[in-house]
Amino acid sequence: MKTLIHNVNVLTMDDQMKVYKKGYVLVDDEEISAIGEWYGQEISADKVIDGQGGILLPGFVNTHTHVGMMPFRSLGDDVPDRLRRFLFPLEAYMTEELVAASSAYAISEMLLSGVTSFCDMYYFEEQVAEVCDRFGVRAIVGETVIDMPTCDSKVPSGGLSYCESFLPKWKNHPLITPAIAPHAPNTNSYEALKRIVELSNEYQVPITMHVAEMDYELVELAEEYQKTPFELLESLGYMERPFIMAHCIHMTESDIALVAAHADHTRVAHCIGANTKSAKGVAPVKNMLEAGLTVGLGTDGPSSGNTLDLFAQMKLFANFHKTYEKDRALFPAKEIVRLATRGGAEVLGFENIGSIEVGKQADITLIETQSVNMFPIFDPYSALVYSANPSNVQHVWVNGKQLVKDHQLVAHDLQEIRETLYSQMEQFVVEAKKRM
Amino acid sequence: MKTLIHNVNVLTMDDQMKVYKKGYVLVDDEEISAIGEWYGQEISADKVIDGQGGILLPGFVNTHTHVGMMPFRSLGDDVPDRLRRFLFPLEAYMTEELVAASSAYAISEMLLSGVTSFCDMYYFEEQVAEVCDRFGVRAIVGETVIDMPTCDSKVPSGGLSYCESFLPKWKNHPLITPAIAPHAPNTNSYEALKRIVELSNEYQVPITMHVAEMDYELVELAEEYQKTPFELLESLGYMERPFIMAHCIHMTESDIALVAAHADHTRVAHCIGANTKSAKGVAPVKNMLEAGLTVGLGTDGPSSGNTLDLFAQMKLFANFHKTYEKDRALFPAKEIVRLATRGGAEVLGFENIGSIEVGKQADITLIETQSVNMFPIFDPYSALVYSANPSNVQHVWVNGKQLVKDHQLVAHDLQEIRETLYSQMEQFVVEAKKRM
Repeated sequence: MKTLIHNVNVLTMDDQMKVYKKGYVLVDDEEISAIGEWYGQEISADKVIDGQGGILLPGFVNTHTHVGMMPFRSLGDDVPDRLRRFLFPLEAYMTEELVAASSAYAISEMLLSGVTSFCDMYYFEEQVAEVCDRFGVRAIVGETVIDMPTCDSKVPSGGLSYCESFLPKWKNHPLITPAIAPHAPNTNSYEALKRIVELSNEYQVPITMHVAEMDYELVELAEEYQKTPFELLESLGYMERPFIMAHCIHMTESDIALVAAHADHTRVAHCIGANTKSAKGVAPVKNMLEAGLTVGLGTDGPSSGNTLDLFAQMKLFANFHKTYEKDRALFPAKEIVRLATRGGAEVLGFENIGSIEVGKQADITLIETQSVNMFPIFDPYSALVYSANPSNVQHVWVNGKQLVKDHQLVAHDLQEIRETLYSQMEQFVVEAKKRM
Repeated sequence: MKTLIHNVNVLTMDDQMKVYKKGYVLVDDEEISAIGEWYGQEISADKVIDGQGGILLPGFVNTHTHVGMMPFRSLGDDVPDRLRRFLFPLEAYMTEELVAASSAYAISEMLLSGVTSFCDMYYFEEQVAEVCDRFGVRAIVGETVIDMPTCDSKVPSGGLSYCESFLPKWKNHPLITPAIAPHAPNTNSYEALKRIVELSNEYQVPITMHVAEMDYELVELAEEYQKTPFELLESLGYMERPFIMAHCIHMTESDIALVAAHADHTRVAHCIGANTKSAKGVAPVKNMLEAGLTVGLGTDGPSSGNTLDLFAQMKLFANFHKTYEKDRALFPAKEIVRLATRGGAEVLGFENIGSIEVGKQADITLIETQSVNMFPIFDPYSALVYSANPSNVQHVWVNGKQLVKDHQLVAHDLQEIRETLYSQMEQFVVEAKKRM
């Protein structure tokens, strides 16, 4: 099956950042088989899509989220220590069915905003993986390990035994990569932290973890280990594994140098929206990139982020980093779009996506430019970073398959997904309202 | 003509910030004539709109923009000293017709994103006022005065004589308030600055001006007058006039105290998006509000902002001020929505709008909550600040008249407005591309 998308402004994100101003892309089953300038020539295809001058780019990659947490959205947003006042206590009411319903909703929201792959961390990841498989998205799904009882384990660190069955089961899926997701360096015992690296080696799966997100995390680790989070994790062997560290807000120059020495494996999921909404701070991304670290953008969960699209993140990224570094020319829009697409693919270790190149898997998003906010366009990167929002996403393909067509899910009914989530939230809502 | 809007979550923004969770609003011609909880009771009306559980709030107020500058959008966004490299030189190619076409486009974009009134500053404001009148929006339209030749004057400070005919012509329009818009304290001669206050007194019209936006502005004024911008303007009598100061980034504690002493007249249009995209800094809004200043939100022009909706501004406002003050509980979503609606109305001096109360003029926006990003909603203010985007704006009324219905302009064709703008931009585009 060959699909031709023509009359589009193709931002390839290849090594030369090549752009075809009026271009075409040919998708052959799962792969991109041709790209070029389009001047009306005949190209044989089973399906032809006129992009009407829209912007075609690789699918956005969300490097850190919690798809199971949709029920928490708009709950206690501006409350101090929300983690301990709302999130931890209410997680007791998360069930297998609720996580599955929430994941379906979150994945729908991501697809509708052009996100084609993501890295998840939560509980009941068996269900998350099943939903990902059902939707046909590309993802890393990480089961949380934390030193307390959780909704999917009566005993602390139950995620370790969960992983023993979860990891081998999904190990060879073409689109889904199972992972271990220790919650944070300070919320796990030393023994559990060691065991996680062993499991990652044993099953050859990545690790993803919140690192240097909380100011008290640094204090606790300094007291217990006389180390920064990065020093501790390096000493335990994390940085020899495929390792996705979310947040990394509190990072010294020497931490950056330490990670840079392991940049082949250890990467950063930067969540500017969640970090600044909660007043935690601005991660030193300029310094990270100068040191050679691999960085992508993440939304964090819907309780923190609060939407799962990367448009809001790109805009916040631009304004925060320019202002923090007092340099309006820093991070031009082009670099930010690269971070949100190819940068994210590099963070997830997905070498076969992230750019529109012949032979790569076809994860592609088409942004329409007919809406009022998308004119004029002197620079398509600027339009994406400073003007676009999720409603401009028209078509989305993952692995060559069209999952969004004309702003709608192709194979799923959003209304039904919402009703299922709502019905599963009944008990959660009762408990949530007690705490409001 | 009576319009009933029922089955809506009404955020009144009245003095008590009263909310009707399942409410109704009755609009009688131009005015709001009744509000209450809606439990299915019969209410006589000529037209009935089922809000389907959406959020009804006062129209957003954009306290600072340049509707004529649509041609500049996405041009040289990340370039240092953009004002002198792109904006000033290209303004030579702005014509009366281009400003009118741009204004129609910008007003369409604002209406479609729920903005019902705004304060404008640019050239050919005669044309801007005519377009505002044609669209039926509420606005302050300020003709720029600057110490150099401009697109609408061959001589420096030509805005002064322009105002002599412009101000009396529009003085008594029910929705449009003409104004004088000195560009900035450092881009006008002392004589012009003095004359502007006289004109404002003579015609009884407001003044709007960029104040303390540029770091070099402070240096220049210190050299010439040994004063801060605020001290200079106060000494010239500006603060006794209805005076809308845009930006106010560089403001000391003593500047704030000075303005606080004139808070009845002198107000602040805070443009967080434009200020941070250009790395100019974050205005001390927390301190301003504590001192009793009146503050609203503004997008700045489409070259700086880059969209004209207040959703992006609300989100940036939350994240920047929380992070700058290191306090996630500061400015809860409710306060931010107030700034974007009632706060803005206070800045513009429009006492008859800004809240949904009996007897007020009906400037109202309905936000639908069926889209994927608008569920769940534990807190409607959170949903507006952290989740919503312009595509959620379903219906908009200005002065009791419905101008947007189901996401479309009622009386205008957006495609036609775009084509007119595009055709007027021909010469501008040629000149712009020479500079890219």
